Amino acid sequence: MRRFAVVSRGTVGEVGILPIAVAGEIRPGDSLSERLLAAAKKQGIRFQARDILVVKHKVVSKAEGALVALAEIRPSAASRVWARRYGLDARVTELALRESRRVVRRKRGVLITETRHGFVCANSGVDVSNVDGGSHAVLLPQDPDRSASRLRTELKKRLRLEIAVIVSDSFGRPWREGLTEVAIGIAGMRPLVDYRGRRDSHGYALHASIDAIADELACAAGLVCGKLARTPACIIRGFSYRPGYGKATQMIRPAAYDLFR
Amino acid sequence: MRRFAVVSRGTVGEVGILPIAVAGEIRPGDSLSERLLAAAKKQGIRFQARDILVVKHKVVSKAEGALVALAEIRPSAASRVWARRYGLDARVTELALRESRRVVRRKRGVLITETRHGFVCANSGVDVSNVDGGSHAVLLPQDPDRSASRLRTELKKRLRLEIAVIVSDSFGRPWREGLTEVAIGIAGMRPLVDYRGRRDSHGYALHASIDAIADELACAAGLVCGKLARTPACIIRGFSYRPGYGKATQMIRPAAYDLFR
Repeated sequence: MRRFAVVSRGTVGEVGILPIAVAGEIRPGDSLSERLLAAAKKQGIRFQARDILVVKHKVVSKAEGALVALAEIRPSAASRVWARRYGLDARVTELALRESRRVVRRKRGVLITETRHGFVCANSGVDVSNVDGGSHAVLLPQDPDRSASRLRTELKKRLRLEIAVIVSDSFGRPWREGLTEVAIGIAGMRPLVDYRGRRDSHGYALHASIDAIADELACAAGLVCGKLARTPACIIRGFSYRPGYGKATQMIRPAAYDLFR
Repeated sequence: MRRFAVVSRGTVGEVGILPIAVAGEIRPGDSLSERLLAAAKKQGIRFQARDILVVKHKVVSKAEGALVALAEIRPSAASRVWARRYGLDARVTELALRESRRVVRRKRGVLITETRHGFVCANSGVDVSNVDGGSHAVLLPQDPDRSASRLRTELKKRLRLEIAVIVSDSFGRPWREGLTEVAIGIAGMRPLVDYRGRRDSHGYALHASIDAIADELACAAGLVCGKLARTPACIIRGFSYRPGYGKATQMIRPAAYDLFR
């Protein structure tokens, strides 16, 4: 079998997903780049140019201190009524509303909001799992693109390598069961590949063929970055992408083109 | 670096995505399993137990003859008006409506339907790219779960190996730009992993943590199964899944729980 290889554009080679297990908790103020490099080293993984590092947002949020003590949240009467009705934690509902700029759906105990960043997801991404047993909630990073960019800059400095970074979260979606990973922060690559105007192998011009490669990369990472395993990051190697400037917010469909507002 | 390996449950190892390039066109009546095995052999790829074969639906549809000559389609007046207004092919619009059981959104030239199978996607999955230059349209396989199951059975017979099979397509989604792959057919594995009731590493019980692993696998495959390259399939190796009976239709959210109908 061939090895993982960085392939030239036009050819398609093997892609590898290398999990990075991190021992111990990530705490506010921790250097995430240091922790990830130490963990990778311990596992015998050496970063290579063109690697894509995918990191679950939760460790980014923890390192950045985007945590809220639930004891300090005073839920509104409306949040208390809603939470009692569906057996939820009113403080989490309250926090989710605070972190939102629009309620998209609120039905049968499910609260879908548009976050301050523009992401549409359940509870504005507020999460109490994998934190500390339920006393704190983790918010989404304040600016996940900036988080990705900072991580990329730090890794570049330490490794002297150009890599790309994706910060991911698990979102639900309409019509389909189950969560899949999406890229909420990105640095060093474009999130979308546009095939419009190019021709397929039969000479037919491709329409409407913009691929959300950053989300596909996040999903691929989701295969090894498990909820129960302490594997908050991975390297995707061998995927041919065009390095460059990109932001995950470019993947948010503008309101004017959104058929589902 | 470690090799791709089938890992035991609980540990997380490397996952590899091995593209299978297929030379020449797939035609109605072709044996897809034969073609894929020949292509894999030519590239020096040997299937292993627990591999997951992901195949783009288009080659499945072609092999099954799910093709329609556009010249034979007589679009309705409504389809003609709609298509003229947005510079579309009225015959494709007509076909998309025929293949649908419900129009979900129809706005600004975009037609989102629920297909006969229950999938929500643009144009009922009817596609004229990568076919023969525009004279035929490819439909979704009539029963993609059955297609996956048939492919799995044939491969099992030839290889004497238990593998899983996913048939994928590229779908758009609300709120986010770009297409991502989804599993529309599956055999040999469950499409969803349910973490509800399990506890995270802090002892916190996980809620609402059903992962759509079949869709994440489809997205991972999308990284190598390109639109422009003749790579309609790949093997995903090293992903630890529980073999068993599953259908992609299990991922379709029942109407009663769908907040976005």
